[in-house]
Amino acid sequence: MKELKERILIDGEILGDDVLKVDRFLNHQIDPQLMQAIGNEFATRFKAEPITKIVTIESSGIAPAVFAGLKLNVPVVFARKHKSVTLGDNLYCASVYSFTKGVTNNIVVAKNFIEANDHILLIDDFLANGEAAMGLMEICYQAGASIAGIGIVIEKSFQPGREKIEKTGIQVESLARIKAFENGTVTFVNGEEK
Amino acid sequence: MKELKERILIDGEILGDDVLKVDRFLNHQIDPQLMQAIGNEFATRFKAEPITKIVTIESSGIAPAVFAGLKLNVPVVFARKHKSVTLGDNLYCASVYSFTKGVTNNIVVAKNFIEANDHILLIDDFLANGEAAMGLMEICYQAGASIAGIGIVIEKSFQPGREKIEKTGIQVESLARIKAFENGTVTFVNGEEK
Repeated sequence: MKELKERILIDGEILGDDVLKVDRFLNHQIDPQLMQAIGNEFATRFKAEPITKIVTIESSGIAPAVFAGLKLNVPVVFARKHKSVTLGDNLYCASVYSFTKGVTNNIVVAKNFIEANDHILLIDDFLANGEAAMGLMEICYQAGASIAGIGIVIEKSFQPGREKIEKTGIQVESLARIKAFENGTVTFVNGEEK
Repeated sequence: MKELKERILIDGEILGDDVLKVDRFLNHQIDPQLMQAIGNEFATRFKAEPITKIVTIESSGIAPAVFAGLKLNVPVVFARKHKSVTLGDNLYCASVYSFTKGVTNNIVVAKNFIEANDHILLIDDFLANGEAAMGLMEICYQAGASIAGIGIVIEKSFQPGREKIEKTGIQVESLARIKAFENGTVTFVNGEEK
């Protein structure tokens, strides 16, 4: 997605060897116009699927997911990273290790929000090691729901997340695929928009 | 806002004496169409203000805020409740006590995302005791920014939040104002939409 890649080149900051900070438009400050374009692009890429619901993870997945949900006219559920007192005990739960933060979080979704006849589009901000995506998949499987695919805003293709997911047969659509951080700049996977 | 009040009556669950659970359309599952209507309503109510930015709090403020931001064509910043390792130390910070959860969280915003010449619309999902709203106001004041007003999705008018904010002279616009939970149902403040 050209508009997103251009924005990453302008506003992304590389931290250390493998962290891309995009706090200017996605992870802390959000650009609503760009998020709408991203949501619409997800809707286009998965238009062949009879999607009934979108599932994402708080907080940075919410903005792209709600615009995809608006376009596809389906509800969005965000998995919570911290169990809320009002959520109750009737939860699907998966553990997700964050390599960036060095911690394991449980992600939870209340059981009444995913049903066995749901066909779920998963959306997340980043795909790196695949931990969050695999956690979301695990929750869908616990519910007996089917997975339409996974929509990712930014994929770090030099990390193993995509490979792990593709082994399961699930379609992954990433709007910007980063090949490497070379000499302090971002380079994208050439010749493809996937 | 009629559509929101109707939805609260259909999908809201009263927990204990003073908690309204709206996990079906706002706090866990999100209805993107309703969130767009809410965002547009905030944009209408504050259209006289030269707003430069919206500030909200993760996670449940994000969906209403991004749709208001889309309509007003301004960026949205979400305050984080837990300091992220990639946020750095250059932060505005306020502490917010949650009566629902019984805990105090710091909320933080990176200093580069609020400037002294910003005119900020604050948006949050609930107004009860006013702790979160006062924390967001505190962060704006630390940055030297002015506040255009506060947009609230659901106000529990029997709790003191609105009164605290109005004492500061800041305009509060709540799209549903709950007068009481009576006999297991929600009653709204009569005769007004504010």
